[in-house]
Amino acid sequence: MWGMIATWRMALEGVTRATALLNRGESAAQAVVEAVSDVEDFPLYKSVGYGGLPNENCEVELDAAFMDGDSLVFGAVGNLVDIANPVRVAHALSRERFNSLLVGRGAREWAVEQGFAQKKMLTDRAIAHYRKRCRETIDKGLSPYDGHDTVGMVGLDLQGSMSVATSTSGLFMKRRGRVGDSPIIGSGFYCDSQIGGATATGVGEDLMKGCTSYEIVRRMAQGMTPQQAADSVVLELEDKLMKRFGRCGDLSVVCMNKDGEFGVSTNIKTFSFVVATANMAPTVYLAERLEEHTTYTLADSDWLQDYEQRIREPIDGALHYD
Amino acid sequence: MWGMIATWRMALEGVTRATALLNRGESAAQAVVEAVSDVEDFPLYKSVGYGGLPNENCEVELDAAFMDGDSLVFGAVGNLVDIANPVRVAHALSRERFNSLLVGRGAREWAVEQGFAQKKMLTDRAIAHYRKRCRETIDKGLSPYDGHDTVGMVGLDLQGSMSVATSTSGLFMKRRGRVGDSPIIGSGFYCDSQIGGATATGVGEDLMKGCTSYEIVRRMAQGMTPQQAADSVVLELEDKLMKRFGRCGDLSVVCMNKDGEFGVSTNIKTFSFVVATANMAPTVYLAERLEEHTTYTLADSDWLQDYEQRIREPIDGALHYD
Repeated sequence: MWGMIATWRMALEGVTRATALLNRGESAAQAVVEAVSDVEDFPLYKSVGYGGLPNENCEVELDAAFMDGDSLVFGAVGNLVDIANPVRVAHALSRERFNSLLVGRGAREWAVEQGFAQKKMLTDRAIAHYRKRCRETIDKGLSPYDGHDTVGMVGLDLQGSMSVATSTSGLFMKRRGRVGDSPIIGSGFYCDSQIGGATATGVGEDLMKGCTSYEIVRRMAQGMTPQQAADSVVLELEDKLMKRFGRCGDLSVVCMNKDGEFGVSTNIKTFSFVVATANMAPTVYLAERLEEHTTYTLADSDWLQDYEQRIREPIDGALHYD
Repeated sequence: MWGMIATWRMALEGVTRATALLNRGESAAQAVVEAVSDVEDFPLYKSVGYGGLPNENCEVELDAAFMDGDSLVFGAVGNLVDIANPVRVAHALSRERFNSLLVGRGAREWAVEQGFAQKKMLTDRAIAHYRKRCRETIDKGLSPYDGHDTVGMVGLDLQGSMSVATSTSGLFMKRRGRVGDSPIIGSGFYCDSQIGGATATGVGEDLMKGCTSYEIVRRMAQGMTPQQAADSVVLELEDKLMKRFGRCGDLSVVCMNKDGEFGVSTNIKTFSFVVATANMAPTVYLAERLEEHTTYTLADSDWLQDYEQRIREPIDGALHYD
């Protein structure tokens, strides 16, 4: 059995390409890194990599991570500027004994030194989004901080190894230097080949308060199904934050266990995700919470066409997120 | 009941001053921030704050964090340069809804904007240590990466609130931009006033692989004593890393529950820590592992005098760590 699960519709093309790798016996590590790189490269996915939304200074600062579930090694970068594929830098860092998490200027210097491709990551379209948001924040008093979709992927290969990778431009209009959960082990991602892997997307500041991905993997180790683990962790974190902190931001997670079974949980209206296994072609699902459980249905062709149109529409139209 | 526990002998003066605060009913948050600030200010504690050891470029990049166990909010900084008290910046960030974790240039800009005191944090003594390590690395082939003592403190106040704070200059000779576990929630620190708090010191790259502090707090919630939680988490992480990764660095932790009971665990020869409670004046203990349990004894006057001498001795002598 091999399998893959990923956050958001934007993962579809990357997952599709990676399933060919997994199907012919390539490693989960390679699959998730290649698939996340594809998402990074696509200019219209505006919360990851090239074309990602900028910080409040109109700079694109990118976060990414990789973890190998066999050895538990990880690599991660925060606030990386103008390097084409942050996830590849994270993957390379996972092979280092020390300095696994590198941020800012130091991360960039190391990436350049290692020969990673430099690329101006701020696109004209992202600048247009930035200008529009500045106006909206002033004119309509909207929070600058909506929009924060991380691509996260968990992969299981035919050898039984698992890996996880994440990549994001972080919270739209974030402060320079802000790091969310995506490059933080335990919060944005966690993976253990003997158990399973998990990854999160949403308001990093809140996901971090619950060590969300670690806790999902831990509950799978204790015997919960991936679906039970995902739902119980998200529900309990939301409940705890409402009681103790009085607020809770968007929380969405996906996970997969070593048998290729998957789980999803969300507290938002529509959370799209992608799954593929040896028995199922890459499929986009839409998750929503009903009562205390997350349910999901196939994304129909109307939704998929609407999505295609939305990511291409002129910026003067309403802002949408994946 | 009030109480406080902290990593390393260097915490003693800060803890002593903070116990006066706790004793008269001040908050745990204030106590840990004031106590960690004291350690940051003392020039001879060479792994924290002013006088902290530099990175491989001979720059002092500082990490710190604060977490409030009532609301679960946290603030943290990574790679902060030339701000007098990183822990105070972390504390201030914990009051923000977003951007809780700030690193590098953005962290410094925010701190300056908020009026935090600027200060050249690199001392002549730290430069001398740096030069000596460069020579040793070349001449004797020593690893540049020994030396990484984080001060971490857990406090419990008379109102039953708990907080935790950390501060460190990180791994000696780290790469520019390297972030360890100290500013990472779940790994370097975690606190929940309804359960307890924990903080870690050692090789951050390894402590992060186990979400060490979160897992200790979680086990206390499940009914373990602080000592059982600390020992079981450190032993299991070490065992797992040896089996899966083939190596394990230094791991030391302290924790306290909401009743003021404490726990400690270490895999190094001598790990010093400081405890104070309503019933016990600030006391330095030396912990070591015997079989599968950590035991600790009072630091005697010989050890304490030797320590005083060591931190003041000329740099040409052998290098020592707290």
